[in-house]
Amino acid sequence: MSYRIEKDTMGEVKVPADKLWGAQTERSRNNFKIGPSASMPLEIVYGFAYLKKAAAYTNCELGALAIEKRDLIAQVCDEILEGKHDDQFPLVIWQTGSGTQSNMNVNEVVANRAHQIAGKVIGEGEKTIQPNDDVNKSQSSNDTFPTGMHIAAYKKIVETTIPGVKKLRNTLKSKSEAFKNVVKIGRTHLMDATPLTLGQELSGYVAQLDHGLKALENTLAHLSELALGGTAVGTGLNTPKGYSKRVAEYIAEFTGLPFITAPNKFEALAAHDALVETHGALKQLAVSLNKIANDIRMMASGPRSGIGEIIIPANEPGSSIMPGKVNPTQCEALTMVCAQVMGNDVAVSVGGMQGHYELNVFKPVMAANVLQSAQLIGDACASFEEHCAAGIEPNQEVITKLLNNSLMLVTALNTKIGYYKAAEIANTAHKNGTTLKEEAVNLGYVTAEDYDAWVKPEDMVGGLK
Amino acid sequence: MSYRIEKDTMGEVKVPADKLWGAQTERSRNNFKIGPSASMPLEIVYGFAYLKKAAAYTNCELGALAIEKRDLIAQVCDEILEGKHDDQFPLVIWQTGSGTQSNMNVNEVVANRAHQIAGKVIGEGEKTIQPNDDVNKSQSSNDTFPTGMHIAAYKKIVETTIPGVKKLRNTLKSKSEAFKNVVKIGRTHLMDATPLTLGQELSGYVAQLDHGLKALENTLAHLSELALGGTAVGTGLNTPKGYSKRVAEYIAEFTGLPFITAPNKFEALAAHDALVETHGALKQLAVSLNKIANDIRMMASGPRSGIGEIIIPANEPGSSIMPGKVNPTQCEALTMVCAQVMGNDVAVSVGGMQGHYELNVFKPVMAANVLQSAQLIGDACASFEEHCAAGIEPNQEVITKLLNNSLMLVTALNTKIGYYKAAEIANTAHKNGTTLKEEAVNLGYVTAEDYDAWVKPEDMVGGLK
Amino acid sequence: MSYRIEKDTMGEVKVPADKLWGAQTERSRNNFKIGPSASMPLEIVYGFAYLKKAAAYTNCELGALAIEKRDLIAQVCDEILEGKHDDQFPLVIWQTGSGTQSNMNVNEVVANRAHQIAGKVIGEGEKTIQPNDDVNKSQSSNDTFPTGMHIAAYKKIVETTIPGVKKLRNTLKSKSEAFKNVVKIGRTHLMDATPLTLGQELSGYVAQLDHGLKALENTLAHLSELALGGTAVGTGLNTPKGYSKRVAEYIAEFTGLPFITAPNKFEALAAHDALVETHGALKQLAVSLNKIANDIRMMASGPRSGIGEIIIPANEPGSSIMPGKVNPTQCEALTMVCAQVMGNDVAVSVGGMQGHYELNVFKPVMAANVLQSAQLIGDACASFEEHCAAGIEPNQEVITKLLNNSLMLVTALNTKIGYYKAAEIANTAHKNGTTLKEEAVNLGYVTAEDYDAWVKPEDMVGGLK
Amino acid sequence: MSYRIEKDTMGEVKVPADKLWGAQTERSRNNFKIGPSASMPLEIVYGFAYLKKAAAYTNCELGALAIEKRDLIAQVCDEILEGKHDDQFPLVIWQTGSGTQSNMNVNEVVANRAHQIAGKVIGEGEKTIQPNDDVNKSQSSNDTFPTGMHIAAYKKIVETTIPGVKKLRNTLKSKSEAFKNVVKIGRTHLMDATPLTLGQELSGYVAQLDHGLKALENTLAHLSELALGGTAVGTGLNTPKGYSKRVAEYIAEFTGLPFITAPNKFEALAAHDALVETHGALKQLAVSLNKIANDIRMMASGPRSGIGEIIIPANEPGSSIMPGKVNPTQCEALTMVCAQVMGNDVAVSVGGMQGHYELNVFKPVMAANVLQSAQLIGDACASFEEHCAAGIEPNQEVITKLLNNSLMLVTALNTKIGYYKAAEIANTAHKNGTTLKEEAVNLGYVTAEDYDAWVKPEDMVGGLK
Repeated sequence: MSYRIEKDTMGEVKVPADKLWGAQTERSRNNFKIGPSASMPLEIVYGFAYLKKAAAYTNCELGALAIEKRDLIAQVCDEILEGKHDDQFPLVIWQTGSGTQSNMNVNEVVANRAHQIAGKVIGEGEKTIQPNDDVNKSQSSNDTFPTGMHIAAYKKIVETTIPGVKKLRNTLKSKSEAFKNVVKIGRTHLMDATPLTLGQELSGYVAQLDHGLKALENTLAHLSELALGGTAVGTGLNTPKGYSKRVAEYIAEFTGLPFITAPNKFEALAAHDALVETHGALKQLAVSLNKIANDIRMMASGPRSGIGEIIIPANEPGSSIMPGKVNPTQCEALTMVCAQVMGNDVAVSVGGMQGHYELNVFKPVMAANVLQSAQLIGDACASFEEHCAAGIEPNQEVITKLLNNSLMLVTALNTKIGYYKAAEIANTAHKNGTTLKEEAVNLGYVTAEDYDAWVKPEDMVGGLK
Repeated sequence: MSYRIEKDTMGEVKVPADKLWGAQTERSRNNFKIGPSASMPLEIVYGFAYLKKAAAYTNCELGALAIEKRDLIAQVCDEILEGKHDDQFPLVIWQTGSGTQSNMNVNEVVANRAHQIAGKVIGEGEKTIQPNDDVNKSQSSNDTFPTGMHIAAYKKIVETTIPGVKKLRNTLKSKSEAFKNVVKIGRTHLMDATPLTLGQELSGYVAQLDHGLKALENTLAHLSELALGGTAVGTGLNTPKGYSKRVAEYIAEFTGLPFITAPNKFEALAAHDALVETHGALKQLAVSLNKIANDIRMMASGPRSGIGEIIIPANEPGSSIMPGKVNPTQCEALTMVCAQVMGNDVAVSVGGMQGHYELNVFKPVMAANVLQSAQLIGDACASFEEHCAAGIEPNQEVITKLLNNSLMLVTALNTKIGYYKAAEIANTAHKNGTTLKEEAVNLGYVTAEDYDAWVKPEDMVGGLK
Repeated sequence: MSYRIEKDTMGEVKVPADKLWGAQTERSRNNFKIGPSASMPLEIVYGFAYLKKAAAYTNCELGALAIEKRDLIAQVCDEILEGKHDDQFPLVIWQTGSGTQSNMNVNEVVANRAHQIAGKVIGEGEKTIQPNDDVNKSQSSNDTFPTGMHIAAYKKIVETTIPGVKKLRNTLKSKSEAFKNVVKIGRTHLMDATPLTLGQELSGYVAQLDHGLKALENTLAHLSELALGGTAVGTGLNTPKGYSKRVAEYIAEFTGLPFITAPNKFEALAAHDALVETHGALKQLAVSLNKIANDIRMMASGPRSGIGEIIIPANEPGSSIMPGKVNPTQCEALTMVCAQVMGNDVAVSVGGMQGHYELNVFKPVMAANVLQSAQLIGDACASFEEHCAAGIEPNQEVITKLLNNSLMLVTALNTKIGYYKAAEIANTAHKNGTTLKEEAVNLGYVTAEDYDAWVKPEDMVGGLK
Repeated sequence: MSYRIEKDTMGEVKVPADKLWGAQTERSRNNFKIGPSASMPLEIVYGFAYLKKAAAYTNCELGALAIEKRDLIAQVCDEILEGKHDDQFPLVIWQTGSGTQSNMNVNEVVANRAHQIAGKVIGEGEKTIQPNDDVNKSQSSNDTFPTGMHIAAYKKIVETTIPGVKKLRNTLKSKSEAFKNVVKIGRTHLMDATPLTLGQELSGYVAQLDHGLKALENTLAHLSELALGGTAVGTGLNTPKGYSKRVAEYIAEFTGLPFITAPNKFEALAAHDALVETHGALKQLAVSLNKIANDIRMMASGPRSGIGEIIIPANEPGSSIMPGKVNPTQCEALTMVCAQVMGNDVAVSVGGMQGHYELNVFKPVMAANVLQSAQLIGDACASFEEHCAAGIEPNQEVITKLLNNSLMLVTALNTKIGYYKAAEIANTAHKNGTTLKEEAVNLGYVTAEDYDAWVKPEDMVGGLK
């Protein structure tokens, strides 16, 4: 492989000749061989591209950067955002905890690529723009990385997570309405209970997701606060007057999202409670989704020796050894995602709790976990919706049979003959393997006519009063 | 010990003669010998007392309960809320997951105590009021327990957690203002960085707690939704018309808190995402508090061989072997609380994710963990405020010495001579053990006059522009 | 209330006149009002009693303590171990993270009680023995607290956890043997699969618990290492020669457990990985038990509209509203314990990861969580065994019906006609609602005679070859 | 793109013409668009390659497979293990929870590649070997996937994790010996305490890692148990006699690792406690490593305004804004890995606890997390060793200054003058800013000569007695 020489304040480094990155990126590649390469999420690189462009515009507007430099920086940032340089960001999550080297990776790529655009050859001549003094002007890794991760997380949540969850929520809502008259047995403690409709059951899932979406949206305000302008320790050293507010406005403009400058930059650098907060809501959604997926696979279990009250789509052969087997695979993918998200929540919290003084140095691991969870929940909900929820149908024959079997219909008699006598009827029918009606009449507590009038499953689900 | 006979639908049970509880409580005592007795939080019992009284009022108002019974029930509930019967609730968290037996414990105590109030002897004659048919009228464990736990959690948060956190927040805020001119060295990566004021540093903690309080308050809306009225599976079977809305109004009136009836009772029984949501915010506060307490003990470390920039109160001898030792014990208590809350968050989530069909049966463990975390955070913040934060003082001598030592003051030169030359100055001073000024001048990059004009710590903290 | 004056190096403190504790305990009571009082587990106090007695014997033997003092100390320690002074230890978990004040609580109680035994009045005259110089001789909180917590945890595990788990394991084992010929449908993905016996199913649970017990026992070696002899920072300052080995021998003798002195005292003070290791095994058991309890409640679900393959004991009325309902309450208690243990594992790990320099100051929270988990698992297994597992019986009628329904019996044909044709048979029977045999013959793949010869459920479970 | 038609029991599927996979892989690609493609770890694919080859050999040996087919299968498996087909495994973790589709992916690739090797064109003519009937003979996804994941995890741990940790352990051990005479101040509660040597301090880290390695090795026995031979539900249906033992022997031979057949196949399919157990030990290591890395960065903090007792290598410029800054970046990478591993532990446990009946369907997520943690710990330890630990040097000047400042040297006087008088000396010196010796003499408790004879730091670290 051929190399060129790049320099930083520590000296010279050999860099692959065909790469745009510089000395510090290369040092990091060599010093942090931990896990697969390029594990730093590209979404964060894109977040950097937005903010570097915004910083260039702001610096220029405030008289700190020449317009030619601004335009060169902006052009490269746009190229990055178009995905043209995805292979120029080889660093891993497991680097310095401030993400300094990923910041420098962007600075170096922008500087070298700008040099090319300016018609020069990388490594030859004075750099057209400087990585630190120009691209990084009025910035520090300490405020850029958290800004980049907020941009990345916010975008992921509004572009992937929320749409995915909403898609599933809407399908469950329409199913809930479609099945509003499907009376079925309820189950508490996994045991037969009083009836409800399948629509009511699904409405509970919808309510869970509505609450989860609201909880997630509640966290966006904190996430919209950008650290940029705090520079090294939050004081804004080396930034021109008016910078922090203006740069956030540019980021808001470029991303189309309501970012603002963080009111307190010390918090924005030293703590990443915003990520903890957002991931807390993602974890809440995981808790909800696990419940929903579990219920659906239990209700769909069978086909002959399970519960079998609903039918879900058969998407692929379910077994390499059992012919004809079909499994609730979307439920399984979704619940595995939930397990991951619950784990990620601890990773984010453990990172968040360990900030020291002016800087939290668990930024990359926190950001990567938030982004993974946000992506997985969004994708898994969309997949679950398309390949499972949209195809849920009641198995009316089974539902009716199981409903009519239930001893818990006796509950309707509580208000007529009292809890104790009703219990006696149910216990006797259970012991004898008979019907409630038979025993109710045998025991002399209810006439057959009254029984039929009082114990009607469809009257037992009548909505909340 | 002397006993009396109590009965339930399964038959007779011997109950200690001097206790107010009945057959089902006694069964539970015998069937669940897991951990210390009476571990079910009393706060939940009190939550039940509010709701039983509210149910009695509502049932009476809607024609389902005689006014004499209402008044008896209400009187006993008031006694419970006055703490008169605290020793009548011997059950443990680790019982049925719906808390059925704790519901019955309350029903039985209310019924037996009402019998006493009516001038009768417990165990003699027809019960004046029935545990199931009267005290539990229009209710199920499935909607009462979650109602009780929402009441308990909401009260704990507004009465203990929020006041404790706010007390600490306010003290940190006033310290932040008091120390707004105390310029000190900043630290990132635990390493010397550019300066900031001690006031700015503390303002970051204030911002963390403000965000945490807001996050916690965001969860109260979900927590204010009460399951009561859903009865067995959420359909409201066996409740009179208008019951669920009215009973929530009574609870709101009796507690003075803005409770409402849950719009979707199926969610309110089958999932306890509201507790997951609330605990998520408590966990966020734990993450913040851990950071704050850690910083304070590091800054206070010493007295002679640590950082020593601040002085915190000496509250007790710190060592049984090292004479004269004083330790940051309040920081330690608080961070231990944070560790517990982080663990509790997983317990709550693991419980929350495992609901089945119409009922989540991890209610007691979820509620107990939320209540413990809410109590501990509130108490620990109050203790930390009183015994530590209120007494924080800067150690000006140390602060000044450490500030003036710092090589990172060189950052002020970036905008004058560029990052690379500034780095050379810092590196040379570090290598030679000299001052920045000496090397700046020696290297010929800056005159002594310019150095003095440009590198002023107090100008480097000048607020965000 | 009446008080007496006690003193420590910080001055005078008023202590309730009827209490044996001294100044430092009282300071701690006042300085740490966090959560309920006396939350520090008594098991740790007892651990202290063992070690204080052992230290007195060792100090005496090595010439550092008079025999009269030794005997006084030992006598009070024995009284403590008999439970005579349980109300003299009012401190909370949430105190200094070294547990210094609980160490001093024991020192003070021993000293004051010794004064009484010596015929003196507490608070009058020179103390017969000194809390620091005598009771705490050759000790520091930093080595006594971890020693006390190792003693407490080891005892709890061998006296409560392991017996409880083994009791359940043995019952499941005997049930597994009793049901070795009960052929039933298997289920994978909750869907019908090839058959196995109920005995085989239960044997898997036994194997889980055997592995869990082995894992737990693997951790005991680390837990048997005692910090005592390290004193303040691990160097053993102020201990007589030969002390650390001898004091561990005394503790082993007094407890009857194989304790040894930790080979590395620096690890034993600064890290509590032994607790992390032990709790990891407790968490593994929780994972296993959750699976087992879940399976049992699903198999027992019904009674009419669930799976219903097994019958478990009915221990109490299951519902306050649904008459005659019986629930798998022991499964619920056990799985709630599992949720708690999973949470506690995070609390222990978060505490364990944050040691600083020579001391981990999360000792009380780590110890309390290990003790709680060890107690709960032991108790919950014993309860589950007695009230559920011991009574498990197959519901043979249901088992036979569900077995014969299963389409997955077709798997037996794979080796005869290939996976694809077998799948066609199963799919056709599923579509038509017919039997496998009908479709196997209709499709012309198998004769009726061959089908009967080849597809025998009892031949499909024939043990591993 | 050009396609060919592949078929499975559900019908025809279009597959990219240049790919070796078949219908079921393609279905899975389309049905599970969750997160980045090909996230299923290649290590698991390689695990499959070992087991498919072993199964072919065993089937052949037991008369169930032709030798030609065995050799074709073995040849493709060898190609896979050489990394020649890495791009043929496009599936994600978030698929069916049994990993069925990844099993089929391997089956399909082996079958199609064998067809090529046999000189045929994929998609033309009868398949030379069948994915289900030949490659998957005597197997099910339910026993192959757990076998593959045990092989992958075991290999990763012995090839990456243990060597990485040992490398770091050995370096810390040699540093511990090198610094055995470097007497320095100890710190407890972050506060000055009695002295110890730097070597003693590091020996504690070595002990932690030794315990962690032992704990990890303790888990290998469980991990060495292979599910293969259990087929669909653990009964071994459709396997030839003697198969399970023999196939494990082949796997042991091919991998060179001590794998055995699981004594209980029901546990091996339905629960993955072996992964929970192994990850528990990885988490314990993370807890230890976090403590070690934290200590090192605190001791190295500065360079001028921190603790500064040790010097660690400067590997890269530490700041994009602060010139000359150097940070403890390897500590940061390592502690970020620890945070991730702590989170992964919860993901693994949450997956492990949710098995249902005969199958745990959280296999891919559990395996992926174990593999990630094992890789990250191994890599991060190796990186930390090379770029940080190997270069640790004491800063003797700072160490001496801080040691001699310490007021805790007074502890040496406890055994001479008692704890109370020693405390008075320390407190007075602290208050007056004087030395211990001055105040000891002033207070008249010790002569200057005795002081010098009794208070020698080098005598206070003298090893454990």
